[in-house]
Amino acid sequence: MKYLVGQTSTGTAVFSVNDGNAVNLSALDERVGEDLMGLIKTPGLVESLKSQMSDAPSVPVSSITPALPVKAPGVIICMGLNYVEHIKEGGYDIPDYPALFMRGRNSMMPAGAPMVRPAASETLDYEAELMLIVGKAGRHISEDDALDHVFGYTVFNDGSVREYQRKTHQWTPGKNFDNTGAVGPYTLTPDELPEGASGLKIESRVGDEILQSSNTANMIWNVRQIIATISAYTTLEPGDLIATGTPPGVGHAKKPNPRWLRPGETVEIEIEGIGICASPIVDETDPGKKVAAE
Amino acid sequence: MKYLVGQTSTGTAVFSVNDGNAVNLSALDERVGEDLMGLIKTPGLVESLKSQMSDAPSVPVSSITPALPVKAPGVIICMGLNYVEHIKEGGYDIPDYPALFMRGRNSMMPAGAPMVRPAASETLDYEAELMLIVGKAGRHISEDDALDHVFGYTVFNDGSVREYQRKTHQWTPGKNFDNTGAVGPYTLTPDELPEGASGLKIESRVGDEILQSSNTANMIWNVRQIIATISAYTTLEPGDLIATGTPPGVGHAKKPNPRWLRPGETVEIEIEGIGICASPIVDETDPGKKVAAE
Repeated sequence: MKYLVGQTSTGTAVFSVNDGNAVNLSALDERVGEDLMGLIKTPGLVESLKSQMSDAPSVPVSSITPALPVKAPGVIICMGLNYVEHIKEGGYDIPDYPALFMRGRNSMMPAGAPMVRPAASETLDYEAELMLIVGKAGRHISEDDALDHVFGYTVFNDGSVREYQRKTHQWTPGKNFDNTGAVGPYTLTPDELPEGASGLKIESRVGDEILQSSNTANMIWNVRQIIATISAYTTLEPGDLIATGTPPGVGHAKKPNPRWLRPGETVEIEIEGIGICASPIVDETDPGKKVAAE
Repeated sequence: MKYLVGQTSTGTAVFSVNDGNAVNLSALDERVGEDLMGLIKTPGLVESLKSQMSDAPSVPVSSITPALPVKAPGVIICMGLNYVEHIKEGGYDIPDYPALFMRGRNSMMPAGAPMVRPAASETLDYEAELMLIVGKAGRHISEDDALDHVFGYTVFNDGSVREYQRKTHQWTPGKNFDNTGAVGPYTLTPDELPEGASGLKIESRVGDEILQSSNTANMIWNVRQIIATISAYTTLEPGDLIATGTPPGVGHAKKPNPRWLRPGETVEIEIEGIGICASPIVDETDPGKKVAAE
């Protein structure tokens, strides 16, 4: 299944997408609800709707404004350094354990929504990432069982304010500016993709300018290993989001000058077979905010 | 007000505490609900209950099993290095910006509940901390306005698995083992304490062994500055939890040998005027978990 959570004139709903046409699943069954949590928590629900789906009216995907796939994830866990060439460009050593950090909900926004360059710093950077949505809870999940815990895969732009990311050794502030992490718009269930969503082209660009271009097969820790590693310390819950790290080509490492995102540009992250997550860059414009941040 | 969220035979409720006696506020008004969120989101609610409170029956505090003050905080943000002597004992330089990281909900448990030493590592350590609960939402909160955004103060033990905290430069895994962060049991509103909860003795101990002993006045960044610093990058929401860092004396820095917490011990964190957060240490016992963690 290919899902799109989004808003139309009738409200926020979960849609099933096929060839640019979207069927409103929330209208078919109230258990579906307004984000993917209904489907995540009710295994078999979508199968029970399949006969109705084929007869249901559809709307063009272009009429839907994307919303967050999961409105209130319990945690958003991000892997920091998971592609060898990106580690080298950042000046880090190749690790034997992944760098993990967390984002809060207020740092996240749906695909299509503005990504906000804060008044506090111009060092806003993109990071193309594969993101997985946890389906089934678990702790101490083995690599063998890991893929059973994945509900689906989506596209993530781990927008980072580098100046704040590197104010100390802890990356949290630079990874948590309001409205800097873009998610979506589509969520693909695992059966629609290669095992572990490996082998997919992953790219970021602004217009014709290709900024990052790699393949999810180049991850150091694959999806099985990521789930096993994280669940070794914490119980994963349905709806938790896990970002899997970014390939080389980020703006802060561009030579001879960093390539920061600028207002007026639209940054796109594309993962083969999943979709494009586009974010127009805007300045933090609220005058009150600007004054307070100076 | 001094609040205690906890369970009795009639369910989970919010209590107002006076001299060891507790009045069930949830029973007086359903808007109070099962954790502090009702009072946080309904300013004036507790004042409207005061006349009923004086006539209401009370139960002894000892009959209540503490629960989390806020069941589902949006974020749990922790300041890492906020007492000069603790920074030195950890081998870090005195910073000009605070080290910030996040914990997820599954790492947290109420005062009185077991703190779990994971099968994966024996390096479980305590950290006595003042924790504040956000009352009013805000971004770019000035130091002058910061205290208006505090609902109350509680006690926190930022239990840390040092081996995993230092596997990489990012502390997340070691700060997020299930059931290692203890909160409560009491939440004091700001009017009950000195401004910014400054000047309070803060201590951690196991039995007669005093492990940490300092004063919240020794924080590098005080509560006003912490709120201003964090809200410069993220919108704080009602119910968010902010931990303010720990004083010197943590177990990993004890000489000649580290002083890890051991099963059978009970670690207590006390902050003057707020209360004692006690956690019995237990081993991760589920055999299935142990096998999976090997």
